[in-house]
Amino acid sequence: MKTLENYINGQWERSNSTQQIPIYNPANQEITAQVPYGPDTVKDVHKAIEHAHKAYLEWKDVPAMRRVQPLFKMKTLLEDHKEEIAKLITSECGKTYAESLGELQRAIENIEVACGTYVLNQSEFSENIAPGIDEFMIRQPLGVCACITPFNFPGMIPFWFLPYAIATGNAFILKPSEKVPTAMQYIFELIDKNLDLPKGLLSLVHGGKDSVDALLQHPDVKAISFVGSTQVARYIYSEGAKYGKRVQAQGGAKNPIVIMPDADIDMTTKIITDSVYGCAGQRCLAASIIITVGDNKNIKDSLVEAAKSRKVGYGLEKDIEMGPVISKESKSRIESLIQKGVAEGANILVDGTNKNVSGFENGNFLYPTILENVPLNKEIISTEIFGPVMTLLNFKSMEDSIQFINSGRYGNMACIFTQDGLSARQFRSQAMAGNIGVNVGVAAPVAQFPFSGWKDSFFGDLHAQGRHGIEFYTQTKVVIERWPKTWSRTF
Amino acid sequence: MKTLENYINGQWERSNSTQQIPIYNPANQEITAQVPYGPDTVKDVHKAIEHAHKAYLEWKDVPAMRRVQPLFKMKTLLEDHKEEIAKLITSECGKTYAESLGELQRAIENIEVACGTYVLNQSEFSENIAPGIDEFMIRQPLGVCACITPFNFPGMIPFWFLPYAIATGNAFILKPSEKVPTAMQYIFELIDKNLDLPKGLLSLVHGGKDSVDALLQHPDVKAISFVGSTQVARYIYSEGAKYGKRVQAQGGAKNPIVIMPDADIDMTTKIITDSVYGCAGQRCLAASIIITVGDNKNIKDSLVEAAKSRKVGYGLEKDIEMGPVISKESKSRIESLIQKGVAEGANILVDGTNKNVSGFENGNFLYPTILENVPLNKEIISTEIFGPVMTLLNFKSMEDSIQFINSGRYGNMACIFTQDGLSARQFRSQAMAGNIGVNVGVAAPVAQFPFSGWKDSFFGDLHAQGRHGIEFYTQTKVVIERWPKTWSRTF
Amino acid sequence: MKTLENYINGQWERSNSTQQIPIYNPANQEITAQVPYGPDTVKDVHKAIEHAHKAYLEWKDVPAMRRVQPLFKMKTLLEDHKEEIAKLITSECGKTYAESLGELQRAIENIEVACGTYVLNQSEFSENIAPGIDEFMIRQPLGVCACITPFNFPGMIPFWFLPYAIATGNAFILKPSEKVPTAMQYIFELIDKNLDLPKGLLSLVHGGKDSVDALLQHPDVKAISFVGSTQVARYIYSEGAKYGKRVQAQGGAKNPIVIMPDADIDMTTKIITDSVYGCAGQRCLAASIIITVGDNKNIKDSLVEAAKSRKVGYGLEKDIEMGPVISKESKSRIESLIQKGVAEGANILVDGTNKNVSGFENGNFLYPTILENVPLNKEIISTEIFGPVMTLLNFKSMEDSIQFINSGRYGNMACIFTQDGLSARQFRSQAMAGNIGVNVGVAAPVAQFPFSGWKDSFFGDLHAQGRHGIEFYTQTKVVIERWPKTWSRTF
Amino acid sequence: MKTLENYINGQWERSNSTQQIPIYNPANQEITAQVPYGPDTVKDVHKAIEHAHKAYLEWKDVPAMRRVQPLFKMKTLLEDHKEEIAKLITSECGKTYAESLGELQRAIENIEVACGTYVLNQSEFSENIAPGIDEFMIRQPLGVCACITPFNFPGMIPFWFLPYAIATGNAFILKPSEKVPTAMQYIFELIDKNLDLPKGLLSLVHGGKDSVDALLQHPDVKAISFVGSTQVARYIYSEGAKYGKRVQAQGGAKNPIVIMPDADIDMTTKIITDSVYGCAGQRCLAASIIITVGDNKNIKDSLVEAAKSRKVGYGLEKDIEMGPVISKESKSRIESLIQKGVAEGANILVDGTNKNVSGFENGNFLYPTILENVPLNKEIISTEIFGPVMTLLNFKSMEDSIQFINSGRYGNMACIFTQDGLSARQFRSQAMAGNIGVNVGVAAPVAQFPFSGWKDSFFGDLHAQGRHGIEFYTQTKVVIERWPKTWSRTF
Repeated sequence: MKTLENYINGQWERSNSTQQIPIYNPANQEITAQVPYGPDTVKDVHKAIEHAHKAYLEWKDVPAMRRVQPLFKMKTLLEDHKEEIAKLITSECGKTYAESLGELQRAIENIEVACGTYVLNQSEFSENIAPGIDEFMIRQPLGVCACITPFNFPGMIPFWFLPYAIATGNAFILKPSEKVPTAMQYIFELIDKNLDLPKGLLSLVHGGKDSVDALLQHPDVKAISFVGSTQVARYIYSEGAKYGKRVQAQGGAKNPIVIMPDADIDMTTKIITDSVYGCAGQRCLAASIIITVGDNKNIKDSLVEAAKSRKVGYGLEKDIEMGPVISKESKSRIESLIQKGVAEGANILVDGTNKNVSGFENGNFLYPTILENVPLNKEIISTEIFGPVMTLLNFKSMEDSIQFINSGRYGNMACIFTQDGLSARQFRSQAMAGNIGVNVGVAAPVAQFPFSGWKDSFFGDLHAQGRHGIEFYTQTKVVIERWPKTWSRTF
Repeated sequence: MKTLENYINGQWERSNSTQQIPIYNPANQEITAQVPYGPDTVKDVHKAIEHAHKAYLEWKDVPAMRRVQPLFKMKTLLEDHKEEIAKLITSECGKTYAESLGELQRAIENIEVACGTYVLNQSEFSENIAPGIDEFMIRQPLGVCACITPFNFPGMIPFWFLPYAIATGNAFILKPSEKVPTAMQYIFELIDKNLDLPKGLLSLVHGGKDSVDALLQHPDVKAISFVGSTQVARYIYSEGAKYGKRVQAQGGAKNPIVIMPDADIDMTTKIITDSVYGCAGQRCLAASIIITVGDNKNIKDSLVEAAKSRKVGYGLEKDIEMGPVISKESKSRIESLIQKGVAEGANILVDGTNKNVSGFENGNFLYPTILENVPLNKEIISTEIFGPVMTLLNFKSMEDSIQFINSGRYGNMACIFTQDGLSARQFRSQAMAGNIGVNVGVAAPVAQFPFSGWKDSFFGDLHAQGRHGIEFYTQTKVVIERWPKTWSRTF
Repeated sequence: MKTLENYINGQWERSNSTQQIPIYNPANQEITAQVPYGPDTVKDVHKAIEHAHKAYLEWKDVPAMRRVQPLFKMKTLLEDHKEEIAKLITSECGKTYAESLGELQRAIENIEVACGTYVLNQSEFSENIAPGIDEFMIRQPLGVCACITPFNFPGMIPFWFLPYAIATGNAFILKPSEKVPTAMQYIFELIDKNLDLPKGLLSLVHGGKDSVDALLQHPDVKAISFVGSTQVARYIYSEGAKYGKRVQAQGGAKNPIVIMPDADIDMTTKIITDSVYGCAGQRCLAASIIITVGDNKNIKDSLVEAAKSRKVGYGLEKDIEMGPVISKESKSRIESLIQKGVAEGANILVDGTNKNVSGFENGNFLYPTILENVPLNKEIISTEIFGPVMTLLNFKSMEDSIQFINSGRYGNMACIFTQDGLSARQFRSQAMAGNIGVNVGVAAPVAQFPFSGWKDSFFGDLHAQGRHGIEFYTQTKVVIERWPKTWSRTF
Repeated sequence: MKTLENYINGQWERSNSTQQIPIYNPANQEITAQVPYGPDTVKDVHKAIEHAHKAYLEWKDVPAMRRVQPLFKMKTLLEDHKEEIAKLITSECGKTYAESLGELQRAIENIEVACGTYVLNQSEFSENIAPGIDEFMIRQPLGVCACITPFNFPGMIPFWFLPYAIATGNAFILKPSEKVPTAMQYIFELIDKNLDLPKGLLSLVHGGKDSVDALLQHPDVKAISFVGSTQVARYIYSEGAKYGKRVQAQGGAKNPIVIMPDADIDMTTKIITDSVYGCAGQRCLAASIIITVGDNKNIKDSLVEAAKSRKVGYGLEKDIEMGPVISKESKSRIESLIQKGVAEGANILVDGTNKNVSGFENGNFLYPTILENVPLNKEIISTEIFGPVMTLLNFKSMEDSIQFINSGRYGNMACIFTQDGLSARQFRSQAMAGNIGVNVGVAAPVAQFPFSGWKDSFFGDLHAQGRHGIEFYTQTKVVIERWPKTWSRTF
């Protein structure tokens, strides 16, 4: 059984820890490799930080025009190897091959935007703020920056951070989810072989909470980026702040979509179904609560039909539309949440539990599930399920729907389906979520826009991607320069 | 004895607390008024938040072009009443009248910049990110925002935040220092009488740590701005983060200035002396450590002479160049730090302790003090004194000076005096501080630039002033809009 | 009979010309004053340029933070005197008092935006473009800038330029329309009395083509802004370019509005009627061609009814909705164009010619007119009428409408009325005009956006208002600064 | 003898013209190929425009994220073929191989910046400018854009325009100098074979003034970019404006460098010598007038020595520092200008005329020449020589030098050599040129900054490169969107 190594100081090396945990293929629960774990991984982290700090000291003075050159190559590298990487993603996280390719495309787009860093990194100059005095700003890197990424987008989420961090002159340490570390392991191998970067500039360290705490506490780590559950995001934000760092921590969601009576039923059904069941519902922008406004007979029938006909199976097989969830534990948790929903009074329109995929009987498969009339005053209505479960609600008006949405604790995404300009405008203006979709099921901002979670879906102020990424990874230095005229000069 | 009232819901009202603490005039220790204090001020804060939240709900939908109109008036208001306000500032915080006028000018400039909010608040639009899909961003306000301000700039620091907060659509609560609340009390009276704002949009609440904690903990307060000591800044950042808020917390400093051999002695002396002793050294951008490079005989003599000849007295009297420090306790603390410096091995070149100002024998006066050869490995070298004390060091080169500077815990300001372009460039590039001065003694960024503390001088990522203020007080909302062509329309 | 004086070098003085032309009140053809005219005005212009150039040399080095202070005052000045100014506008140009107040509000908003110049004027800084080399940009003023403004917005259009020009450090010369010079004459009197500006910084020169040519040809005039007819705009652009200047020249229009079948009839009628007949149709954003899509019976009836019931009269009288056109010649030209339209085959649904306003029988009044079915292949369909005339067309689809719109020579404005998000999106994306309205009748950009004419409606690349104004009135200076490390220093 | 073909509609085709002119290798006057010429090339141009317009109609609706993909590939393509291209450049334009590689690097950097177009192309969004109304801006392409490029940077100058033009959605036609068309011919072959672009999007048309006039006059060409002499630039600007186009036209220069007494002699000599004689003086940023301030004995000796020792020869041979000038005619013109200088009273310190390069006796070689004490009131002082000729002046002070500089007609570049911060600051602030160098000999802005000629060195307002490029190649469209709340909706 292969144990993954860390990438520290520009080379692959064994963890200091002798403890490991297995990596499973969620489609069949086969163990594909092991990942270092436990308290001794702290030593790995410390070593990575030490070398990262050295790399930063060298890298920060490299002109930004030079620092982006490896990113241009990284784009080509990912494009040239997207099939291999996508297969790895599917193997370790379960999503379909098409979904894996899709997330890589998003990764590449972030690299593209970061290639523009030497323009985006420009700061402001004011001549003559007072006679003979100029004032201007410089954006300088922070030092060692780290990110801790979740299991659901192994190949994309690291690239929300990595390209911006190094383009702006920082060193960067990635601690991937211990459940899905192989895609980035492979990408780091590509980077190691093909890109000319200072040793230690990019590090990959494995582990669990011990590694995370080591990153949070070390004084040479200046910034922490996190994506995961709200509970952990809150911990990361609070702990990171306690140690004086800047932090951006993205948490969970319970994303609503409102379907107005004028929405086209076929297209709406297709898009919403893809949003709810895509990646088996395990994405922070998955739609979860589907709100119909007014009479909903036709759209309900259509959604039920689409749920029932979705093709579930191993993501590397042809025509599969939905893979397994990440783990046995996750499957159980989702099943028990469905039961809890029913116990709380929900009507189960489509029941995706207790079903097998032939040939993958050990896989963590669930089928699409629809709960109707989940009580608004019970717990399940506000609990993130993170599985292929649609909660179907009906309200009388968009205004009621918005009021319900805004009463929730999360603010990651809110979407509306309508042909009506006014409905779209009112919704986008009033819905309290940072990523808004109009006739869009997964309102994931493209790389030039910040991924803008609100409320309990995000802690911090500067989000991932685009200009926010540049701002997060740099500190502003304001220079006030006065060259007094009255000084005597020797010429 | 007058007890200050709170300004809540657009009216002045008594605190719920029956406990008070006195406000002193530091020049004579006379008590001018009392300020509410203690645990019952929490009720005041809660009430202010409740009404602020209501005001926000109304104000957020007012077009930004309208929201800045009261700021245009506020600028005129402060200009028209600057003499009265400056006198109040001097009376409660001790600085000279000229210094008080100066800080008001900085306040006004922040209002001016915030008047431009409807331009600065614009966000990005991308047409056609994919066929038929547009994506754009909106900046929306956060809700209720609060700031907690220190004693040393009673009339300026609130305006680092207030104008931006309300121009972007938030409600705003000010908790001024309990030592110096009367200037803002007066300004709020002007606002109350002259500006047409929703009730509750601007609140003024008095108190101490209880009030602060109430602001930190209340879920409807979305953002906290703080300026004060590093110890409290760290607490505010950590506590604010624990409660999921965005926080910007500005702390202490120990600001170095490097004097190169080519610096003009007269001008350098004048500027540095103003920096060290201005506001009696009680400003976060006061120079504290003066580093001469190379032979320093002439500049040292000049600095000593300037320290000795500085006119100390009541700030409202004519020609006075330096007022008292804020309190008896502060005076004692500074004196004991001077003694500690001497005990640690420093040579006292000018001793400003144990001196009186005639007619103000009860005032908290200290005279300019210069310590030489403070040992680099002892405590006083890194302790913020916050009083009129210059620490004089000598290094062989600029490089050594920068190395010393960068080893410190603070990063608020670093300045250099030189005629040499290369020295200036290297210094500004390498010195690890966020506000850099070249031939400038107090490198305070003008209002369009962020006040950019680094290291232990700042916790957070977005600073006060300018575009950072706009970004801090708004949350980004990204909208992805798709109007599918294939939908059948009825026309 | 009063002859207007020029404002040159900070004082009022008689023109060098002894020739004059009268200024009429278009509501009664009474002569209110005379304006200098003819070849000798060239001397006035030359003198104004000479003093403006001197003022520029002084003003350019005044910090931008200081240069905007008079603009803050100018805003208050216009607000405090808006009634008097609005009356003057109505008296000389005929529009209603409410319309005059409205244009002043737009003027004030441009002043507000220009108040933010010291932020908007910031330019870019890049540290370390190569080791030891920084590169940055400065925006410096051009010198003397001039604008030539039309009769239809005497109090607004000068402020599209003036505030930006002086805030960025230029001197500015206004040559107002010889038909409507009194509003700006009054405003310059206010400026003269109340604002503290260098002599010669702002000049007002009267005259006609001779003055214009003098401005175009003088080497010390660096930029020309013009608003007027396409024919003259083209001349100004071409001539200005011949003399090497930067030019922005705004021309005519023939603005279409498309009414989709789902548009609300009452609101659409009201808005469109205001657009077509507001300012008696004499504005470059007046709707002119109204295109109904599909069945148009109801909307046509509604538009006819609204045209017939519009209250025509003297703009200073109560409840008047439409005033006279600017001159006898203009009235005749419009009448003959209506006749030409009929001769070319149009059906006249409402005939506004040959009608009197009681008490103002000498006024240049026309009533609302509607032409239907104007042939697409004849001349009138593409001729700017600049009077209260609606041309009503009907097309089968929005696509046909857009095709028709895009075949026209102008591109000032295009609007659509619809509830449908897709129609709005397709229209805004595809219609070839620079100012697009959705359910808006007069798509005049607010001051922070460029007034974006396309095609024959604009010549140049940088438009009036906002950031374009800042860019137009400044020239970029790029500085590459290298402070070589290897130079030996004496310390 | 090979005759170059045009690249039109995605394929290579013969010119309609049977007339040709030869292309020479300036090092030996050998004819390497022929280029189409004469009035019949107008037909070529018209055909190119026709297909370009079609390509634009297709390309404009391709998302910008897709439009930049070929640019990422183009960067790699140029990097992979830089040696071949550099050899072609040297062969046709004479500069050294190192200089050819250098200009390619600048071309590549412009491609890099244009790769960021989908970020730079974002425009502004303002929510709620009035209740229920949003306003935003879109940047849309212009249509067919053309550039006319000079002989001195065959491989760089086209890339000041091409990448920005197509990234923003335009079609682009290049008319290279008829003297040096082979480098771009080769690059277009690479593009043709490797990039997937719509047919007609990029065109290459050959010819002389006839071709240029055809581009200037055709209504479907919306923008013209030009680099060349001031005389032609003025013509292009004036003619382009006459036909209503937007134009950016870069002209000649007579660039001064001021050497202050504190400048390091060795480094200054090296940098200035490279500036004056690099590319045989044939670049618009070549230093031409070298101004020493104060005593100049040492620096003069050093400059003379450097001029004398410069290695002149064929640019493809090793260690060669300077190649020939472009043509026999050019050589004669330069020689006669040198004679004229002497006739006007200049002292010739180094005479580079009448010298041969062994083995290249037919080449258009000149050696470095230095004229001293050129009279300030005669013609040669303000005549662009565009050859390897240094004019040496001496002034008493920097102020005198700046006054002399600012009295000139050109404003392309001005540089200063000094260690002094104040001198640098005053110079950069006051010298009237758009590209300022401090201790830099060729102040060529990097690609993210506009190449900012002033005065007779540039006509227009938006320069080449960076954000100016984006702005030049797009037209702003402002959309005002109102979705009225009061409309009755059916749901």
